[in-house]
Amino acid sequence: MSDSLLNVVRPRAGVVEVVLNDPGRFNALGGEMLEQLIATFKDLALDESLRAVVIAGNGKAFCAGHNLKDMAAHPELQWYQALFAQCTRFMLSIHQLPVPVVAKVQGIATAAGCQLVAQCDLAVASEEARFAVSGIQYGLFCSTPSVPLVRNVPLKKAMEMLVTGEFVSAQDALQAGLLNRVVASDAVDAEVERLLDAIVAKPRISLARGKALLYAQKDMGLEAAYQLAAQTMAINMMDAAAQEGAQAFAQKRPPRWE
Amino acid sequence: MSDSLLNVVRPRAGVVEVVLNDPGRFNALGGEMLEQLIATFKDLALDESLRAVVIAGNGKAFCAGHNLKDMAAHPELQWYQALFAQCTRFMLSIHQLPVPVVAKVQGIATAAGCQLVAQCDLAVASEEARFAVSGIQYGLFCSTPSVPLVRNVPLKKAMEMLVTGEFVSAQDALQAGLLNRVVASDAVDAEVERLLDAIVAKPRISLARGKALLYAQKDMGLEAAYQLAAQTMAINMMDAAAQEGAQAFAQKRPPRWE
Amino acid sequence: MSDSLLNVVRPRAGVVEVVLNDPGRFNALGGEMLEQLIATFKDLALDESLRAVVIAGNGKAFCAGHNLKDMAAHPELQWYQALFAQCTRFMLSIHQLPVPVVAKVQGIATAAGCQLVAQCDLAVASEEARFAVSGIQYGLFCSTPSVPLVRNVPLKKAMEMLVTGEFVSAQDALQAGLLNRVVASDAVDAEVERLLDAIVAKPRISLARGKALLYAQKDMGLEAAYQLAAQTMAINMMDAAAQEGAQAFAQKRPPRWE
Repeated sequence: MSDSLLNVVRPRAGVVEVVLNDPGRFNALGGEMLEQLIATFKDLALDESLRAVVIAGNGKAFCAGHNLKDMAAHPELQWYQALFAQCTRFMLSIHQLPVPVVAKVQGIATAAGCQLVAQCDLAVASEEARFAVSGIQYGLFCSTPSVPLVRNVPLKKAMEMLVTGEFVSAQDALQAGLLNRVVASDAVDAEVERLLDAIVAKPRISLARGKALLYAQKDMGLEAAYQLAAQTMAINMMDAAAQEGAQAFAQKRPPRWE
Repeated sequence: MSDSLLNVVRPRAGVVEVVLNDPGRFNALGGEMLEQLIATFKDLALDESLRAVVIAGNGKAFCAGHNLKDMAAHPELQWYQALFAQCTRFMLSIHQLPVPVVAKVQGIATAAGCQLVAQCDLAVASEEARFAVSGIQYGLFCSTPSVPLVRNVPLKKAMEMLVTGEFVSAQDALQAGLLNRVVASDAVDAEVERLLDAIVAKPRISLARGKALLYAQKDMGLEAAYQLAAQTMAINMMDAAAQEGAQAFAQKRPPRWE
Repeated sequence: MSDSLLNVVRPRAGVVEVVLNDPGRFNALGGEMLEQLIATFKDLALDESLRAVVIAGNGKAFCAGHNLKDMAAHPELQWYQALFAQCTRFMLSIHQLPVPVVAKVQGIATAAGCQLVAQCDLAVASEEARFAVSGIQYGLFCSTPSVPLVRNVPLKKAMEMLVTGEFVSAQDALQAGLLNRVVASDAVDAEVERLLDAIVAKPRISLARGKALLYAQKDMGLEAAYQLAAQTMAINMMDAAAQEGAQAFAQKRPPRWE
């Protein structure tokens, strides 16, 4: 597999940073880029030393979404179905990965690029970053981006972004719930590091159980959600990591996990 | 059909403004008003030149909800069932209309009037506008208003408004997610125009597919939502409007849609 | 039943304040505390004069969640299952109580203590209060707290709190939707009183119908939600309280309900 469109690095133990590296095309999610992302996340899913993933973009754009020029060249239903199915596979692989995935956004995030931010578990952005689900500007409603978007931001905000296609600032996106933190552009790396510090200090098994549980229970009725959560928590409590944590608490010392 | 309770105007090509015009009764949603609204929206649903609808109110109130005086005069279960069924038909016709519906709110919006704001796809309000689900003040919990309300604002905010019946300011309503924009009262028309500018510049078919998709997918599990969204987007991409948009993008020119 | 861990008082007609009174253990939700809470709420569910419940904490903490020391002493799956099932029974009894339950938060609310705030219908906090779902600090993901948390605050905010375990301020919690109001610590009692004033002025039957309806309809599809809400509202309108309210409205006088 060629890795020319991605730059996959390990900035610290347990952390993989996946950098979209096609700045000339604003890191567009073309077929080849998506294929490489899917392959990379397939590998990451098998890496039991993994604790967190960062997705970043190289250049002026975080990610400008699908490659509309390619799409113009293939006016075929099956080609489009294959493209959106491929993109969905990648988005679901973020959702299914057993560790937190953090978007680190330094520039524009449009259409499927905005979807990518929404689909990540957490997101930190530079105050200059801007966000739009802009497909409608070209007659293509951002249907797949609307899936994670409406699960992040209030309904009328999602509708406004989708029907106007207009940009919102990082500050607006933060207030709407699309982002966790917005900082000056030269402070983004440090802010992501602080978040990673907090994450890698926790046991992998507990975060894996928790991420899956949160997403599973949120769509259930309240009683079913509680039932699943209570079972998950009891099982989690039997993990060696939680037993050590409880002992550490009882003995008033920090847990020793490695 | 008498149209004396509604003022239906076409301020610009593709846009219909439906003005509630019963200021002496604070534009109450009585049986006759609802009948006229349902008939109007039935017509609008057949108008293929339509691109957007604005709902406004004439006078001091945007809409004060149901006519409690009429309700006092008919202490009959079937009468109430018929009233709430009729109101629900109207609210669902906003939801089902294939174009965005914008509430333009200049005064108080209470009970079913607040519901109307919540049920619209978008909402712009004057900074003097005020919002309440106030039925509980008279012993009638705003059950039907609670349906779109809790789909717009955080759960505890909805509960507070519903059990206290108290007014919230436009600024509060904006922050809670009930509104898209709040401006000075003399700027409301211009702000709605700006929103309409953005909407009528987009192809009708794309907005129609998108509005329906957004509401359908938001209640699904994530994978089903993505599956429906991906199919919708592929079909949308085969529309002449999206093909022209993609060609325009590839040729670095604005799309020509009319 | 011993009541030493709870202080149950009636500060005014129709209102019961349940004070967690185990300050030496930061009002931890141990087995005995939960047993007393369940018994208390069982009694409250039978009290037809009840109009509102306040849950408060005595001492520096509102509630520090489960007793991790006890949990360390019982490394048995069944013991943990029983504990979380017991806690869930208590949380659901808040949900099912036919009157509004208000959390009055003066100190830290962590893990199941934060869950308790989220599970209450309304919440008022001192500006010094702080909130965390901190189990992950000890390797135990706050799975059951995540159930009401993600129903109160935006998804990425919930995820951040759950994977970092870090504290958020009362102001942050307010903005995120976890709280209704934040005031200076010496103004919390008065603010809760104002909320209770608004609630006890309303008919119990209407609030009971409304609370149940709001939680039931919010998880339904839109049309089913409207159908249930319309039926609920028609039946509510036949209650003597609503008939009196409508008559009062028609006669331009305040309702007389007692």
